[in-house]
Amino acid sequence: MGGHCDSLRLSDRTRGEARQRLLSIRGHVEGITRMLDDESLYCVDALRQIKAVEGALHKVASLILRSHLQDHVVSAAQRGDTEEIVDELMEILKYR
Amino acid sequence: MGGHCDSLRLSDRTRGEARQRLLSIRGHVEGITRMLDDESLYCVDALRQIKAVEGALHKVASLILRSHLQDHVVSAAQRGDTEEIVDELMEILKYR
Amino acid sequence: MGGHCDSLRLSDRTRGEARQRLLSIRGHVEGITRMLDDESLYCVDALRQIKAVEGALHKVASLILRSHLQDHVVSAAQRGDTEEIVDELMEILKYR
Amino acid sequence: MGGHCDSLRLSDRTRGEARQRLLSIRGHVEGITRMLDDESLYCVDALRQIKAVEGALHKVASLILRSHLQDHVVSAAQRGDTEEIVDELMEILKYR
Repeated sequence: MGGHCDSLRLSDRTRGEARQRLLSIRGHVEGITRMLDDESLYCVDALRQIKAVEGALHKVASLILRSHLQDHVVSAAQRGDTEEIVDELMEILKYR
Repeated sequence: MGGHCDSLRLSDRTRGEARQRLLSIRGHVEGITRMLDDESLYCVDALRQIKAVEGALHKVASLILRSHLQDHVVSAAQRGDTEEIVDELMEILKYR
Repeated sequence: MGGHCDSLRLSDRTRGEARQRLLSIRGHVEGITRMLDDESLYCVDALRQIKAVEGALHKVASLILRSHLQDHVVSAAQRGDTEEIVDELMEILKYR
Repeated sequence: MGGHCDSLRLSDRTRGEARQRLLSIRGHVEGITRMLDDESLYCVDALRQIKAVEGALHKVASLILRSHLQDHVVSAAQRGDTEEIVDELMEILKYR
């Protein structure tokens, strides 16, 4: 969203892989929504599925984070946007 | 999935609210998938969106967890399935 | 402190084991404090040690949590303090 | 621990602040150990104290992490140790 990041793009490879994984996560979320139509659903079965989705989302985030570190963070000193890069990252990593 | 939980159902109220929230989470995930079509996407913008979805999932899980505690866990001693109830819960709460 | 929990005590066995583990955690924290006296300390080595302590603390908390579930939470319906027990637990489990 | 990190030191300022905070965390851990001597200790009171220590440790880790990002990670491309720096960081951030 503007500023220092105009030329900092997520690599095509990571973008493609993240997209693929998110499609699968959407399917998983839809599956849980259907589970929730079942009147006899046991709470813990729903919690287990949500936990699996959280794990899958965490993997996508890790993928993008690694890409961001490799492609943008390690070169911030050269570009001269260290402060913004570090502030953004600390914000993202809060409670991660 | 059988055993002690056959008669332990997620309450209709919580089931309905969880379903509603998951529909919205599905929409959010679809939104991120579309973001990932954009070649100029900045990594941190994707990470922020994923983090928001993680927060929303955490809220659904908290809702169901509270319901499970109130409706099933606090009465396990009466039913006599303390061991299963506690083991399941500890499994779910790992790294939560 | 006080109120419904006056008669709800941590079992001697868990209390003893938790105490033992916390003594070891204190030693670990002291070790990190000494590491921090070293001018040539590498950040990541400090972060790794802190992460190990976080893991050890998480184990103590899991031990006490399991004990609390088994000894107090599953019998809340019988005692009639479900609301307090559940509210406390949800507070403790936030961001866990 | 050798290798690329020989010249990468935690800044004196952060080292001092982290040390100060760890001394206070050690005191807090000792306080919990003493709480655990009390036979009438309520589980949830112990869990709350452990959670407070976890929060305090998380703050120290955030402090050191920010320092590491600012002082070492953003200049990895210049130094030429991007791969090690990123691998270490991803390891540290797992389940954080």
